[in-house]
Amino acid sequence: VEFDGPCMKTEVPGPRSKILAQQLESIQSVVQVNFFCDYEESKGNYLVDVDGNRMLDVYTQIASIPIGYNHPALTKVMTDPKNMGTFVNRPALGMMPPEQFSEKLVNGLMAVAPKGFSRVQTMACGSCSNENAYKAIFIWYRVRAGVLSFFFQVPGCPDLTLLSFMGGFHGRTLGCLATTHTKAIQKLDVPSFDWPIASFPQLRYPLDQFERENAREEARCLEEAEDLIVKWNQKGRHVAGVVIEPIQAEGGDNHASFDFYTKLRGITKKHGCAFLVDEVQTGGGSTGKFWAHEHWGLDDPADIVSFSKKMLTGGYYQKDSFQPDKPFRIFNTWLGDHTKNLLLTEVIKVIKTENLLDQAKRSGKVMLEGLYDLQDKYPHLLSKARGIGTFCAIDVKDEDTRNLLLLKARNKGKTLSIMNTIYDVVFFLSGSDQLWCSRNTMLIFSWISLM
Amino acid sequence: VEFDGPCMKTEVPGPRSKILAQQLESIQSVVQVNFFCDYEESKGNYLVDVDGNRMLDVYTQIASIPIGYNHPALTKVMTDPKNMGTFVNRPALGMMPPEQFSEKLVNGLMAVAPKGFSRVQTMACGSCSNENAYKAIFIWYRVRAGVLSFFFQVPGCPDLTLLSFMGGFHGRTLGCLATTHTKAIQKLDVPSFDWPIASFPQLRYPLDQFERENAREEARCLEEAEDLIVKWNQKGRHVAGVVIEPIQAEGGDNHASFDFYTKLRGITKKHGCAFLVDEVQTGGGSTGKFWAHEHWGLDDPADIVSFSKKMLTGGYYQKDSFQPDKPFRIFNTWLGDHTKNLLLTEVIKVIKTENLLDQAKRSGKVMLEGLYDLQDKYPHLLSKARGIGTFCAIDVKDEDTRNLLLLKARNKGKTLSIMNTIYDVVFFLSGSDQLWCSRNTMLIFSWISLM
Ligand code: FES
Repeated sequence: VEFDGPCMKTEVPGPRSKILAQQLESIQSVVQVNFFCDYEESKGNYLVDVDGNRMLDVYTQIASIPIGYNHPALTKVMTDPKNMGTFVNRPALGMMPPEQFSEKLVNGLMAVAPKGFSRVQTMACGSCSNENAYKAIFIWYRVRAGVLSFFFQVPGCPDLTLLSFMGGFHGRTLGCLATTHTKAIQKLDVPSFDWPIASFPQLRYPLDQFERENAREEARCLEEAEDLIVKWNQKGRHVAGVVIEPIQAEGGDNHASFDFYTKLRGITKKHGCAFLVDEVQTGGGSTGKFWAHEHWGLDDPADIVSFSKKMLTGGYYQKDSFQPDKPFRIFNTWLGDHTKNLLLTEVIKVIKTENLLDQAKRSGKVMLEGLYDLQDKYPHLLSKARGIGTFCAIDVKDEDTRNLLLLKARNKGKTLSIMNTIYDVVFFLSGSDQLWCSRNTMLIFSWISLM
Repeated sequence: VEFDGPCMKTEVPGPRSKILAQQLESIQSVVQVNFFCDYEESKGNYLVDVDGNRMLDVYTQIASIPIGYNHPALTKVMTDPKNMGTFVNRPALGMMPPEQFSEKLVNGLMAVAPKGFSRVQTMACGSCSNENAYKAIFIWYRVRAGVLSFFFQVPGCPDLTLLSFMGGFHGRTLGCLATTHTKAIQKLDVPSFDWPIASFPQLRYPLDQFERENAREEARCLEEAEDLIVKWNQKGRHVAGVVIEPIQAEGGDNHASFDFYTKLRGITKKHGCAFLVDEVQTGGGSTGKFWAHEHWGLDDPADIVSFSKKMLTGGYYQKDSFQPDKPFRIFNTWLGDHTKNLLLTEVIKVIKTENLLDQAKRSGKVMLEGLYDLQDKYPHLLSKARGIGTFCAIDVKDEDTRNLLLLKARNKGKTLSIMNTIYDVVFFLSGSDQLWCSRNTMLIFSWISLM
């Protein structure tokens, strides 16, 4: 039976959530907890909380539920006795992989490999995916330099760097954190690497009214990035790679044109830097293509593409040349979690057989139209409606207004989304279990430019 | 039905493993792959490979299988329909935990919390456990310094450091890697932090013949550690914490006396450094106590204790004061994997009801006696037999000899362990599914001092 809409019984968090939060508080900080969920009862786009509130969920566990709650295809994986051994015994995938490992990779990750990539390394989350991609880049850069032998005099720990962008988010472990530049609180008090950071374009909206200004802004950022590479190379702290998201997500849903990325890719090639495209948030289809970077239309868009979240497993695709020269240079105990590969294989089947990429495109159009209408109707509150596929966002006037909107919507069971218009749009999207869950529509209202 | 011993059909890797490795090679590096496994057929201490070879497995997925393969208690968790929602829908535990989250923590991680710890933070692997423990230490040090306000003039990224030990292993992400000092290849080409590193005692065996020398060696290392703290504090690069394993595991099974750890704990208190005990390898019971640091017999042994591997989930216990002052300072999308908490709760029940800690003590004694006998019998090959519980090791003359021993044993179905004597010991341990799996007996023969 499918849910036909939200159904609210209490304010959120309700009394049962509050009791559970009190209990948890004796063991853990609960300042980040929104409410407690009943994951058995949740279904499709509807999240049910422990007070029986059924909410339209377009936040989907920080954008990590690819085809809705309790999708029957996934339940089937779990009840297949053939899979029991995989779920109960977690293998050290790098040393003793299970019999079906290759097959699941071929039908899972490799079935959606970006053009030009024939190799994939699994990891367990977005952070270790990027951390290890960074290591692969440093090793590649040094090994290549060793062959060319024109840079380095001494072996050991070199002074290599990665270039990242203001507003970028690539994770919170110490290596990733050196390339993450969103909120100050994330980096405060934690030692970091001194690596170059370039400006990310701040586009003005609506795009068609600011074509010239935006082109100038992007040219400025590209010039700055190239300058940084040249300068840091000159001072002996070589830029081994450039890391960027196809859409800055945690940093506020910042888009740049496909032309910007095309030119940036050119710069990396010119200066011999690896190009790492972080698709942890954007990968999995919500932009209407399986990988957001496919929109650029390039033959050679990247050297490494990292993923996690909606892909269920973490990991990265890599060009052959990024395979380290020796064993155990990229390694850890589990190297991912094969249970996630089993589930992902089914997710990918569902996305293909049900044409969910097309649906994301269609739904995204409706959603973006809805956002345009909203900002026309409330120009004092809303601005900068933007998006590709269902990966949409709009800016709210200020933080208080945003929080009020979020809270009101949630208590109307249109959780984490907002207002009737959007609700209708998203509701339209969620008529069936098989329908596409938007990436993270909460972000539509959660990112703000405070001017 | 329980397996009554190994049963070998081919050499290992066998023909089917070789074919699968060829297939995988087109997608991934396979240089680290030993052989492919049939995890459905494996049981207890016996790992079955894809060629039907049944091997006594004391390597247990790099020491990460706590109570043997396909333990019925774990299979039951998987087939309980009530748990389906947890396995199919991975929650963002920090924001929307499932209803049973507190309860599973109380009956799982908190049921085995080290004395003095009432708080636990879940993570997904050993690396993010340590990375976030490091961050918690830096934040704690700065917040405390802020209150006392005698160190720091400026906010922002400080020049704080962590002290670690030669031969220590704490993970391979960039933050962890700065404290990992085992093989050079792990760090080569990767940028690192410049943090202080102290010597770890190199004890001479048999211990009772070298009491005075060993006491002197430990005193030397303690003095060096304290000197480093003082010097680095003086030069303004304050040592916020000290990180150490109760037994150095990846670095070669290096033990120090309980007195050494007691004194080191004293030094950290004297100088206001946090003390992080990394129990990723040692935690879970194989030393005969649930946590190896309990052997020290201290009332206040640590400020943070990190874990992973046999605990199935990663994470760390922390003193209240290490809880960051603001939300989202320690955070990521998933903050662990609740499916592992469900399994761990059962593992802990099994360990308790079947008195597996006692069994680890008893078995360890037998094993260590066996190792003593072996080194008496082959003094030209073996030396330095040592261990607590089943966390035992012995040194082999050189790398070639070790590899030969490993290979011969494996092809006799006494995989990853070695020789009849040991085999008999371990076989004695593995007569039942409910018997204790040794930590990682492969290590008995895999670590060598090449003099
Ligand atoms: S760092 Fe990715 S799971 Fe731990």
